Amino acid sequence: MHFKPEEHGLERGFRLTVPQEALLKLLWCLSVSVDGGVIPGVGIDCCVIPLRHGGLSLVQTTDFFYPLVEDPYMMGRIACANVLSDLYAMGITECDNMLMLLSVSQKMNDKDRERVMPLMIRGFRDAAEEGGTSVTGGQTVINPWIIIGGVASVVCQPNEFIMPHGAVPGDVLVLTKPLGTQVAVNAHQWLDQPERWNKIKLVITKEEVKEAYQEAMFSMATLNRTAAGLMHKFQAHAATDVTGFGLLGHANNLAAQQRNEVAFVIHNLPIIAKMAAISKACGNLFNLVQGTSAETSGGLLVCLPREQAAKFCSEMKSQSSGGQGVAGGAWIIGIVEKGDRRARIIDKPRIIEVPPRGSQATNQDNSSISPTPSPNLS
Amino acid sequence: MHFKPEEHGLERGFRLTVPQEALLKLLWCLSVSVDGGVIPGVGIDCCVIPLRHGGLSLVQTTDFFYPLVEDPYMMGRIACANVLSDLYAMGITECDNMLMLLSVSQKMNDKDRERVMPLMIRGFRDAAEEGGTSVTGGQTVINPWIIIGGVASVVCQPNEFIMPHGAVPGDVLVLTKPLGTQVAVNAHQWLDQPERWNKIKLVITKEEVKEAYQEAMFSMATLNRTAAGLMHKFQAHAATDVTGFGLLGHANNLAAQQRNEVAFVIHNLPIIAKMAAISKACGNLFNLVQGTSAETSGGLLVCLPREQAAKFCSEMKSQSSGGQGVAGGAWIIGIVEKGDRRARIIDKPRIIEVPPRGSQATNQDNSSISPTPSPNLS
Repeated sequence: MHFKPEEHGLERGFRLTVPQEALLKLLWCLSVSVDGGVIPGVGIDCCVIPLRHGGLSLVQTTDFFYPLVEDPYMMGRIACANVLSDLYAMGITECDNMLMLLSVSQKMNDKDRERVMPLMIRGFRDAAEEGGTSVTGGQTVINPWIIIGGVASVVCQPNEFIMPHGAVPGDVLVLTKPLGTQVAVNAHQWLDQPERWNKIKLVITKEEVKEAYQEAMFSMATLNRTAAGLMHKFQAHAATDVTGFGLLGHANNLAAQQRNEVAFVIHNLPIIAKMAAISKACGNLFNLVQGTSAETSGGLLVCLPREQAAKFCSEMKSQSSGGQGVAGGAWIIGIVEKGDRRARIIDKPRIIEVPPRGSQATNQDNSSISPTPSPNLS
Repeated sequence: MHFKPEEHGLERGFRLTVPQEALLKLLWCLSVSVDGGVIPGVGIDCCVIPLRHGGLSLVQTTDFFYPLVEDPYMMGRIACANVLSDLYAMGITECDNMLMLLSVSQKMNDKDRERVMPLMIRGFRDAAEEGGTSVTGGQTVINPWIIIGGVASVVCQPNEFIMPHGAVPGDVLVLTKPLGTQVAVNAHQWLDQPERWNKIKLVITKEEVKEAYQEAMFSMATLNRTAAGLMHKFQAHAATDVTGFGLLGHANNLAAQQRNEVAFVIHNLPIIAKMAAISKACGNLFNLVQGTSAETSGGLLVCLPREQAAKFCSEMKSQSSGGQGVAGGAWIIGIVEKGDRRARIIDKPRIIEVPPRGSQATNQDNSSISPTPSPNLS
């Protein structure tokens, strides 16, 4: 279950991940480059290019980042799921082609490189296959740090994708994966850092951290493809995927693109069990409950007609076996009301503690975790 | 003409490029990853994906690398030209979409970053525009080294591209850019390294090195789009672009893919003036005359019916104004004969010294530099 470097002929202390500072810098840089207009990060997740041929569009997205889990195979799956997620956020369930972008670390010796990179590549390919596509090419460089990512491309007819600007007042907001991946990944690294660990050991056990880390890893490796399919079945009005800017950041981006004057109000935060407590214990280092904690390969945030939301959630759950690479669940987290195209989280949002899927509680009915109608929901 | 850092508010000693060792490692890694099957580097330059819609294909390629010239704007142009070149090698003259892949150096301070990156991005965008496409998105990370590259995608009808496997005995091989870019780039860096410079100062002056460097820079920034268009006009049978594996490496890759049992025999090597002498002076460090010196954004190697080759060359020249970003010329460099799908360079190939386009000699008729028929050409 847990990745053991020595089982792959690697040093016991082998680390795949890049130091956290780098990840923080990375996020900083992403927002910078958004201003620089380099990436479409803010607003629509993909580019949609009208083609010269019969009403078709080329929809394309790219994403790459540094390893954040130690298991090379899972890291490959996560990277692929993260790239495909931008297509799924537009309700696109197919992908015509995937390119893999890889940078091999110069600091890794040849032996380790030959052990680690094939695992990462296999994970990436397996996830691509699960997405019904395959990796036909790509590019590799050598670099101080490992980088993995890809480019997903699909040529679509107009009815194959849902532009993310159709939300109307009365819609309900659904989130298809729990939050807290960044917290879980950090907490797991802190197991080896006493000064950090002492900050959180009062609120969580080492075993719980490991379980949360596994949950985060499987959640990140889960494709949002099921959700993309259900967006069509239940007439979703708009969606985005939750990644580096956190739930609130991406909710704001989505709200800003809406044709109607709407606002998103978030009441519930489904979070991997105990991660909210950790975030609080270390002085809101992550701003998890504030909604700005970065997620990797997070769920889809979907605007659905109110009468469809519960059905969407229960179908997400029924198609979920809790295993790796399959839909995990879905939670109604808020509403769409008249407003100024912004998103907010209410004071004292309800925290939904999502237990690791390994544990018994996994079999609870996620769709029942929807807020009972209340003044601020009607 | 020459890039002066101080004119952009940068330190006089500002260096955009990555140390040469890194570039050598990079090449090593590229060949490794080819074995690993990660990239299609060997064989066809692009992936061609049949689509679900009316006989259309998605043709796609990606490429990224480290800066090899100091001028950020030109570096951006070169990166874009290098990506598009894979499409041009298939005779594709259009590109539906371009993504930019960028890694910003963490070692650069914010001030320099804000000066350098916009120049690089502008160069990339300008070259994309010249290619009739535009950059709609991409991804940026922060990283120890600067990386720039992109993804070019186009959806084509079958008649828009030429699969690179139709060479027949009797065809003629044409090269559309001179060789020697890596030598020129290195020699230019050696101007500041006495121990290196002393090795080559007997065969070239500093002024000549600077001219060769400028020629290499403009050549690398030149799109192969004109050549791609002429491939159709003159019924090219196959083509590839010359990059990291050098002329012979890519000629071998191309030969290996041919449907017919053919061999490529190369008699002439058009090389930026004096670069062959430098390569010789430093003990064939680059294997330039052996055909394996890496090129960046090199020319197209095109297999043409013999009766079309001279016309192809003269039209390349007539469409060339010698300016930046336009076709540079073309040279008949060899023949296709019956054989075992390999390529070779004859002993004592004829070196064609290509003068920097700044100099008078630029106006010579390139197409006249074709070998006079000889036993091994008929």
